[in-house]
Amino acid sequence: MGAIKSFEDLKAYLTSGNGVTRKKMAVANAVDMHSLEAAMQAVKEGIVEAYLVGDGKIINERLEYYFASADKTYVHVVDVADPQAACEEAVRMVKENECDILMKGMVNTDVILRVVLNKEHGILPKGRVLTYNSILNIPGYHKLAFFTDPAVIPAPNKEQRIEMIKYALETARKFGVEQPKVALLHATEKPNPKIAFMQDYMDIIELWKQGEFGDCIIDGPMDVFIAMDKERGGIKNVPSPILGDADVLIFPDFQSANCFYKGLVSFGGAGMAGLLQGTEKPVVLNSRSDSEECKFYSICMAAILAQ
Amino acid sequence: MGAIKSFEDLKAYLTSGNGVTRKKMAVANAVDMHSLEAAMQAVKEGIVEAYLVGDGKIINERLEYYFASADKTYVHVVDVADPQAACEEAVRMVKENECDILMKGMVNTDVILRVVLNKEHGILPKGRVLTYNSILNIPGYHKLAFFTDPAVIPAPNKEQRIEMIKYALETARKFGVEQPKVALLHATEKPNPKIAFMQDYMDIIELWKQGEFGDCIIDGPMDVFIAMDKERGGIKNVPSPILGDADVLIFPDFQSANCFYKGLVSFGGAGMAGLLQGTEKPVVLNSRSDSEECKFYSICMAAILAQ
Repeated sequence: MGAIKSFEDLKAYLTSGNGVTRKKMAVANAVDMHSLEAAMQAVKEGIVEAYLVGDGKIINERLEYYFASADKTYVHVVDVADPQAACEEAVRMVKENECDILMKGMVNTDVILRVVLNKEHGILPKGRVLTYNSILNIPGYHKLAFFTDPAVIPAPNKEQRIEMIKYALETARKFGVEQPKVALLHATEKPNPKIAFMQDYMDIIELWKQGEFGDCIIDGPMDVFIAMDKERGGIKNVPSPILGDADVLIFPDFQSANCFYKGLVSFGGAGMAGLLQGTEKPVVLNSRSDSEECKFYSICMAAILAQ
Repeated sequence: MGAIKSFEDLKAYLTSGNGVTRKKMAVANAVDMHSLEAAMQAVKEGIVEAYLVGDGKIINERLEYYFASADKTYVHVVDVADPQAACEEAVRMVKENECDILMKGMVNTDVILRVVLNKEHGILPKGRVLTYNSILNIPGYHKLAFFTDPAVIPAPNKEQRIEMIKYALETARKFGVEQPKVALLHATEKPNPKIAFMQDYMDIIELWKQGEFGDCIIDGPMDVFIAMDKERGGIKNVPSPILGDADVLIFPDFQSANCFYKGLVSFGGAGMAGLLQGTEKPVVLNSRSDSEECKFYSICMAAILAQ
């Protein structure tokens, strides 16, 4: 398998049949059209088998009305009318390996997170770092940009950042990137000792040299130009094995990751996919303002991680 | 004057003659082609009268060789061979009102900043906040986005942020924006009490209600979608008088401002202009990796602020 370089590649890979198997996905309170449409598209493309957990009457009505002609062989309705109970049932199905992927339906993020994080019945193993792992498909960039974390950890400490890098590396490798190039981002290439995470960056590079992260290249601090733009980054004459070719972008904080991706989604034609990692299985946790495309590709991302 | 909505508008306004006057600009160590080309273009367009401070022999040679046919009526060479001394002379010319704008030539930012910040001979009045004030010209956005600060203050405190907003408002008003809409950016629209600047945002909105910032609208926290993207921001159903129409973007920190603008310059076709504010006169302080266009429009931005 060559590396997957765009969302089109991603879909083509998952629908190729080449050793790729359909994954089972539990959708918590799947009563809204947003999650139903994304799940049904992923079913249609052969990517998942959907377990729609929620009020059976509502779900069945919607399936009949909006997806009348769809093949329902891989669609199952699990009738749990109460939203909280539906979350609990979906999480249980994932925890007990009946499903490979958890997806949020019509339920507040806080509510499903409480169930996911529940010490007894949840799916976050003790001591694991919960973080949001994402991918940008930027028309002007020559490959996918795996990036973290735009949503969950405001200002990662060193231990969290190390885990975030490992999750992103795992994702990039599952996408066929053999030796991922990881850019530790900062406003400039000059380390600024006044900035808290600078020492973490240095320590992480030291750990990389000791083999902690496997076969990959980690460099930084560097700015977005050096990481992703050979022409503009090159003018700076900063020697970096990454120059203009980063696979993985590690952002200083979730503010910078968030502003970066939203700018490119709104004004750079970029597509975005993302999910929660650190849990036993990937959790697709899109928000209402995410597009249908974003939801679909987030399921695709989860399906690859679950292979 | 209607509001200037693009860099094309900006150039048209400055070259219209309509009450706009040519400003005097001192270029510190103007021996490199980067600063010479930007300065000569601004001279040619009638925007500045240039005082090229530096090694007279080198500057004159370059002027004769590369700008042989250019009208030199508004070009003056000030012969100061030593780069440090050239910075000092350029700053002196600005301090003593012989010039309206200072521009960095071939000299490290650290070196010129030390001269600018010198307590006795520099041009930063005591107690003033020194910050970087910028503009993005994004093809997909319907107007200019004034934003701050991508370069100088890593994590602004409340007092600094208040001054940054005032500088950005001053800039927007000089560009003809009558009631600028100021977006206080965050990863989401939900205030997160764990994040240090959240209380500052609340306090700033309180100050705005008391009239501290004049005729403008300040709202937040909000994300980039709500600030600049009516469609994606609208899905969230967050009532904001700014929705999709921000003039001024206040970023949480310089990391987020930096990543945002560089992403859009590399992959959104955006143009950028910026300068140092807080000083007695605007300081154009571009870096090598900035394009010719960026340097030229930064001079234009300084010329408007100096009107």
